Amino acid sequence: MRAFVLDKELAHQIFNRLYAIGYDGKGMTRPSYSDKENQAHAVFIEVAEAHGLEVRKDWAANLFVTLPGQNRSLPAVMTGSHVDTVPCGGNFDGAAGAIAGLIVLCAWKTSGYRPQRDTTLIVTRAEESVWFPISYLGSRTAFGLIDSALLETPRSDDGLSLREHMSACGAQPDLCGSAPVLNAHNIDCFVEVHIEQGPVLIEDKVPLGVVTAICGSTRYRSAVVTGKYAHSGATPRRFRSDAVMAGASLMTGLYAEWQAAENEGHEMTLTFGVCQTDPLQANFAAVPGKLDFVVDIRSRDVSLLERMNACVIQNAHRVEDAFNVQVDLGVRTQSAPAVMDKGLQALASTAADALGIGYATIASGAGHDAATFAGQGVPSLMLFVRNENGSHNPDEAMEMDDFFAVVNVLEKVLRTRSERIS
Amino acid sequence: MRAFVLDKELAHQIFNRLYAIGYDGKGMTRPSYSDKENQAHAVFIEVAEAHGLEVRKDWAANLFVTLPGQNRSLPAVMTGSHVDTVPCGGNFDGAAGAIAGLIVLCAWKTSGYRPQRDTTLIVTRAEESVWFPISYLGSRTAFGLIDSALLETPRSDDGLSLREHMSACGAQPDLCGSAPVLNAHNIDCFVEVHIEQGPVLIEDKVPLGVVTAICGSTRYRSAVVTGKYAHSGATPRRFRSDAVMAGASLMTGLYAEWQAAENEGHEMTLTFGVCQTDPLQANFAAVPGKLDFVVDIRSRDVSLLERMNACVIQNAHRVEDAFNVQVDLGVRTQSAPAVMDKGLQALASTAADALGIGYATIASGAGHDAATFAGQGVPSLMLFVRNENGSHNPDEAMEMDDFFAVVNVLEKVLRTRSERIS
Repeated sequence: MRAFVLDKELAHQIFNRLYAIGYDGKGMTRPSYSDKENQAHAVFIEVAEAHGLEVRKDWAANLFVTLPGQNRSLPAVMTGSHVDTVPCGGNFDGAAGAIAGLIVLCAWKTSGYRPQRDTTLIVTRAEESVWFPISYLGSRTAFGLIDSALLETPRSDDGLSLREHMSACGAQPDLCGSAPVLNAHNIDCFVEVHIEQGPVLIEDKVPLGVVTAICGSTRYRSAVVTGKYAHSGATPRRFRSDAVMAGASLMTGLYAEWQAAENEGHEMTLTFGVCQTDPLQANFAAVPGKLDFVVDIRSRDVSLLERMNACVIQNAHRVEDAFNVQVDLGVRTQSAPAVMDKGLQALASTAADALGIGYATIASGAGHDAATFAGQGVPSLMLFVRNENGSHNPDEAMEMDDFFAVVNVLEKVLRTRSERIS
Repeated sequence: MRAFVLDKELAHQIFNRLYAIGYDGKGMTRPSYSDKENQAHAVFIEVAEAHGLEVRKDWAANLFVTLPGQNRSLPAVMTGSHVDTVPCGGNFDGAAGAIAGLIVLCAWKTSGYRPQRDTTLIVTRAEESVWFPISYLGSRTAFGLIDSALLETPRSDDGLSLREHMSACGAQPDLCGSAPVLNAHNIDCFVEVHIEQGPVLIEDKVPLGVVTAICGSTRYRSAVVTGKYAHSGATPRRFRSDAVMAGASLMTGLYAEWQAAENEGHEMTLTFGVCQTDPLQANFAAVPGKLDFVVDIRSRDVSLLERMNACVIQNAHRVEDAFNVQVDLGVRTQSAPAVMDKGLQALASTAADALGIGYATIASGAGHDAATFAGQGVPSLMLFVRNENGSHNPDEAMEMDDFFAVVNVLEKVLRTRSERIS
């Protein structure tokens, strides 16, 4: 295999430009289907066009950058990720994968290399479902998996609908339901680079994680315990409907279920990321009458997700009885677990060994666009880059040396696949 | 005893005027040392002066309305309550007791009755310690119990100091430390009417509660659990510092201690009235790194308060270790329990029996200005009026018939004491 020169300076520049676009005074805020996300996409378009790569968008404004193959009828090799962020997130989550794909295509194009197959970077829209409560919105739209009813979903920050936000971003929501732009039959494989969002690679002291599977999730994003406000001193326990005590009991009850599942050897996570009394009514001298909370459960194991979901419902009933409150869990949202392709895992391991890059095999607790591709039957893989301090916060800390090491592995994997003539 | 005619129409009018002053669109908001509290005091001054009662204020702007006795050197009989409210509270908490005292004095004055002793209504300032974290601020100031350092305490809503708020209300904070305006030696007794803030009288189907004791409290008004934000899916349990899980475990741990104390026959309350993640950083896809909460514990038993305080500290240490977080409980504030005078309780029971008014004996879980008087050695009593839906909320529901029944009992108790010549 010939070696290609990655334009490291270009990668640095793109990271810096995305940082300037997203900086909110503390971290990165590039909301899904926002002007900030548009600006980030525009950087990719500008660089891609400057390098003579093909650029197109689908009706949902996902971006496709393609280096044409010698036989354009062969299923394409794909890579990519997203450039939206959670509120006050970091500059590497999502962006690293999109930039990785772009600089591989730029290196190939600059060197005059022309693969057998089309090789396409997808920069997806709206991967961070904190804005719209829909997992992998952009990539699922590209596969025609979004129902038009979801177009009326309000965005969490401003309440404007997905339809309105898409239109403002130059997308064409009225085409929802038309033929999907992506089809598993036309895709050879999908490989997504992403920072690790936990501490495992840091602990293991290796720059690369070869991902074996992506966890699915079960979530309740707008659960509420309703009790009754009452004087904190004058209301004996038997008269109370204490929303906070009920919520705390539900949480500790589910925590015990989590520990039990781990003791049986299962892997999962359980998180109550938001938990709040009503700032307008709660005070230190009143039994709290309302508690809002969210539930997030993740696992590679569908049956474990279902078992834990049953535990959520069971604990909700338990605290309703024990604390004389009502628990409204609200709508359950879910994403399915996804297994990564073993052949692609082997290719990545071989490439890393050849390049002298240390790696660990690892499951992804977080969801990613690669889960959409895998769910459609596309052989898929994720490559994690070592990253300190987790993700979804301004302290994400990916070393650029680690990034380029993983881009080199990505390049070898994509090239091996794109050189296949059948 | 001669009978006096209560001016029921006047009582209705005053309640209505206080309602108009305090209405915030949903409930009553008359903050401590605010223009709203001033306006409420002005209503009392206007009515008192129109009836020819003596009116004066102390340096803290507590209001004193006196019907002079025949022997003004005898210790005075006192009654009263407050007219500030919690945010979005009701119109009866506090106001009922102040109005009860005023219409008794008006009835006496109108009829030409002149008691042996000065009989004085105190309308206190700043009883609701949600605004300044100081119990019974107004009545304690009248007894010279407030340290001048507390004048710099910021009010919870606007952050302006107690000193600034007092000055804006026409008080003279610079006189803090001068001779107290009230002294136990000059006070025969103190009787405070107040709505019940729990459901006991409703359950017992009686309009009057003769109070045996007022609970003391131990509070942490600004406790915080500090953990570490991390991706909810990508952070295994062993790497987490989950502030919400730690807080929930602390709460359920203390709830178990409460149940244990009750099983031993103790009476107390335990409330976490405020509990919230940071709205700017918390989201459903992140392990929460911060949880603010408050603790409120009340009991008539000082040793139980101390035992539960030790449990708070012990549980804080426990969850620090179990969840790898820090718990900062912040400043502890306290109020001492107070026992009501048995002679006054007997007088009230006798009066109720004579008037054919049903009553129950009851402890006050909530704190009241009467606790200040009792704490200074003044024989003190509280009379509760039946009230539905608790207090500190817009749904307080006291029937005016119940109110006038209790005012009649108050009148008899005050008269019995004010007719004593030695």
